[in-house]
Amino acid sequence: MSSQPPHPTLLIPGPIEFDDEVLQSMSHYSQSHVSAPFVNTFGEVLTMLRQLFLTTNPASQPFVISGSGTLGWDMVAANLVEPGDDVLVLHTGYFADSFADCFETYGIKATQLKAPIGDRPQQDEVEKALKEKDYKMITITHTDTSTGVLSEIKSLSSLIHRVSPETLIVVDGVCSVGCEELRFDDWDLDCVITASQKAIGCPAGLSIVMASGRAIERFKARKSPPGSYFGSWKNWLPIMQNYEAKKPSYFATPSPQLIHALHTSLTQILSKPLEDRFRIHRETSEKIKKAVSDLGLKQLASKPENQANGMTAIYLPEGMTPPDVLPTLMKKGVVFAGGLHKEIAAKYVRFGHMGVSVTDPKRDDIDKALKALKEGLVEVGYKVPA
Amino acid sequence: MSSQPPHPTLLIPGPIEFDDEVLQSMSHYSQSHVSAPFVNTFGEVLTMLRQLFLTTNPASQPFVISGSGTLGWDMVAANLVEPGDDVLVLHTGYFADSFADCFETYGIKATQLKAPIGDRPQQDEVEKALKEKDYKMITITHTDTSTGVLSEIKSLSSLIHRVSPETLIVVDGVCSVGCEELRFDDWDLDCVITASQKAIGCPAGLSIVMASGRAIERFKARKSPPGSYFGSWKNWLPIMQNYEAKKPSYFATPSPQLIHALHTSLTQILSKPLEDRFRIHRETSEKIKKAVSDLGLKQLASKPENQANGMTAIYLPEGMTPPDVLPTLMKKGVVFAGGLHKEIAAKYVRFGHMGVSVTDPKRDDIDKALKALKEGLVEVGYKVPA
Repeated sequence: MSSQPPHPTLLIPGPIEFDDEVLQSMSHYSQSHVSAPFVNTFGEVLTMLRQLFLTTNPASQPFVISGSGTLGWDMVAANLVEPGDDVLVLHTGYFADSFADCFETYGIKATQLKAPIGDRPQQDEVEKALKEKDYKMITITHTDTSTGVLSEIKSLSSLIHRVSPETLIVVDGVCSVGCEELRFDDWDLDCVITASQKAIGCPAGLSIVMASGRAIERFKARKSPPGSYFGSWKNWLPIMQNYEAKKPSYFATPSPQLIHALHTSLTQILSKPLEDRFRIHRETSEKIKKAVSDLGLKQLASKPENQANGMTAIYLPEGMTPPDVLPTLMKKGVVFAGGLHKEIAAKYVRFGHMGVSVTDPKRDDIDKALKALKEGLVEVGYKVPA
Repeated sequence: MSSQPPHPTLLIPGPIEFDDEVLQSMSHYSQSHVSAPFVNTFGEVLTMLRQLFLTTNPASQPFVISGSGTLGWDMVAANLVEPGDDVLVLHTGYFADSFADCFETYGIKATQLKAPIGDRPQQDEVEKALKEKDYKMITITHTDTSTGVLSEIKSLSSLIHRVSPETLIVVDGVCSVGCEELRFDDWDLDCVITASQKAIGCPAGLSIVMASGRAIERFKARKSPPGSYFGSWKNWLPIMQNYEAKKPSYFATPSPQLIHALHTSLTQILSKPLEDRFRIHRETSEKIKKAVSDLGLKQLASKPENQANGMTAIYLPEGMTPPDVLPTLMKKGVVFAGGLHKEIAAKYVRFGHMGVSVTDPKRDDIDKALKALKEGLVEVGYKVPA
């Protein structure tokens, strides 16, 4: 039995439904941010993040800072590149536009390589682009939350290392870390940013970053100071290193309650093999995508290989808009999200399937949602194909 | 009876002890950040902040953003001044040095006006400084958490408006909002920044800002874009206005749980007259300062008029350091903080007295702390003067 009061099941691509124990950790009594027990908890969180990102290289550096996932972009733009540098941004939806805006704020020249809606830039296009300029960095949105398009990080990384070995590889994993396969060391990545409230299963309010030794060296070799103060690794790097060494130190006050909740969710995630976690998310996603297809509906992500495993963006039947459908789903106790990609926002809805809704056998969130989707569409006039 | 498990009483200058109901709100079930119920809660939080800051001017603009109090400095430096501008920073401790660092990050020229440790810049010095340069902004730390020195905002503001009327007046109220008298409208302030975890009584993780209509106009008249992306009011202003108008919108995902906790703490605070809240903090502070003096100990803040009402920084007896004293207090169930001002950190401790520890008649936190301080000092060899 859940200790949470009855509420509509949140199946948007973040925030997700949270486990009881994680939510209880949010109520932790007040602790000093420099007390031994809290420093210990924070240090363990950083060490567990290494396991979650599948990095054993001691040069890798985790960061956990109060803020939203967006703050991760600022950290990348303000610490890892310098004003005037060129950055190649692979575009698979809304979030690449915003990341590019973030780079421009810090004086970085962002060139976007765009794919048609529902697709991702092709490897030959990426190779061609990398040969055209001296890009200091390339950014890839692993899952774009606006479209549900999945990027192919492993083969892209090997392409980039071959064609442009000095280019730092940065992954926006806000909607992927914790549900998609992501291997920081094996795939030779330089920086992955994420947030607490999606597949990691901890309430929103934490920006989470993993940086490679190469990224940290690049940061240390900067000619100009970092472009942000709150996001400056000059301020945060010693703090994170101290926390992991279980030594108290202070730059800005962390949120002990959120850190406790993250500790609980990471402990739960790491209590089972990550391979199982990736597989369950993949199998559940396949089931959902088949059900969507059986309803005669199309996804934004146009091919099986570019469809995310933690969410599905679904085109509504011709003539229907999210305000026609979402309230009906809500009446059935299920919350989906509307569209977010500017050009087509009125034509689709988004179904998030990450975390406990997928992994906890005591929940029937996914079946309930698929049933609600079918019945809800019928109620508003849709005729399911025979 | 508290629903919190037994734990040492946290009496540092933030985070403070939290009310049961506030901590329970931290466990709120997951909600979409754009759902009507959550948008309503966020909107009410913004409206309650107007009451807390004592502003009824509709042009005033509250902001609540995931982050620590430090993020407020970035918002000030990146939105309200432009590269090359001069800013006058009044120095009453550690936090002015850091605020000045933050300005330099964004290309702003920060000139510090320093007072001796334990004192604050005098009005004639401030007047003289303001006449020397065209300062676009002056910053005042209301209570410097490193020293417990209180600034005199009301008379400074009237001086600044008289001598340099175009200079924006910015108050760092991280350790003052919710316990010190602060009247945003009556004192004609332009921007006050604070954080959730001190006298506002909500766990850490929220940066809270109130800006005047004049500040917003100055922001809108910028020639250069804001210097931060995550802290950009270009991104946040429409979001905050939408939330308060109860309309969903999105820039970066807020933390619903922290917003619920802030809603609970603000509701509790505003259920009683703010004048009473200021008075109780003042009276409790007087009692603590008298007890400290009766123990033969001195405060860092050297005069009654520059002593904060939400904390007391206490010089230890000659030859004693915080590691001699803090573990003894901890054994008695009381947590004080060590020193933070670089030059004298080893010579003093800090006692925070804000929020429920002061206002909740069911708690005996303050008496317990005073008793522990006296007994603890005796145990480590101090002889209380007769």
